Amino acid sequence: MATSLHNHELEEGLDFRPKFDASGLVTCVATDVATGEVLMVAHMNDEALRKTIASGEAWYFSRSRNALWRKGETSGHTQRVLEMRLDCDQDAVWIRVEQTGAACHTGRRSCFYRKVEGGPKLTFVDADKVFDPTAAYRE
Amino acid sequence: MATSLHNHELEEGLDFRPKFDASGLVTCVATDVATGEVLMVAHMNDEALRKTIASGEAWYFSRSRNALWRKGETSGHTQRVLEMRLDCDQDAVWIRVEQTGAACHTGRRSCFYRKVEGGPKLTFVDADKVFDPTAAYRE
Repeated sequence: MATSLHNHELEEGLDFRPKFDASGLVTCVATDVATGEVLMVAHMNDEALRKTIASGEAWYFSRSRNALWRKGETSGHTQRVLEMRLDCDQDAVWIRVEQTGAACHTGRRSCFYRKVEGGPKLTFVDADKVFDPTAAYRE
Repeated sequence: MATSLHNHELEEGLDFRPKFDASGLVTCVATDVATGEVLMVAHMNDEALRKTIASGEAWYFSRSRNALWRKGETSGHTQRVLEMRLDCDQDAVWIRVEQTGAACHTGRRSCFYRKVEGGPKLTFVDADKVFDPTAAYRE
């Protein structure tokens, strides 16, 4: 990849200049600060990003509901952000979080509770439910 | 989120049914199997996903070059995939990899070599270069 001056600034500079996609979003990966496990992949718009930085709690933008939401606002399963990093081209964010309860609306700690195996076919892994998703939940 | 029958199948079923976006892509997070560190966030189309599963090496789809690529095909910095997981709604993939050399084209082990701090402002962290990116490189 030819590195233009613009790319150089983006990659080597210390200015916070998130590169939002056509929908105004960056991708966010949340990992468990204790285990390193990937808990979820979601999106943030500019407001979600700024609220996350300002509050130390994870905020996202839901593409399906077209709305900003604070993780755990209805479920109580909040994420305290201990570290946030930006990738080389500033279009992806990695947050290391302390997860209360479970990240996944299905009741699992992580959204990644199925492994892909030859076939390909899925198998459950780390799929115990932390809470009962049939109870009222909307996220 | 109201769970329709379709969603239930997608979330609790064991059929491999990746949900590609309008561009035919799913998001892929690659973490270092040894340290848990997030190495990179990229995209896979159906072919990249299938080649990754079949070969045990990471293949991606580059949106900027509009082309399929095997990670490390020009740099030698390949990724051996030890585990692949799919998330609840099957639109994101998590691979745990053994990274040869560095994942990032800037020469760092991980693309996430800058931390976001109050301001917000970036600071370098784990930003030592594993290789010299001024040498020929195209990924």
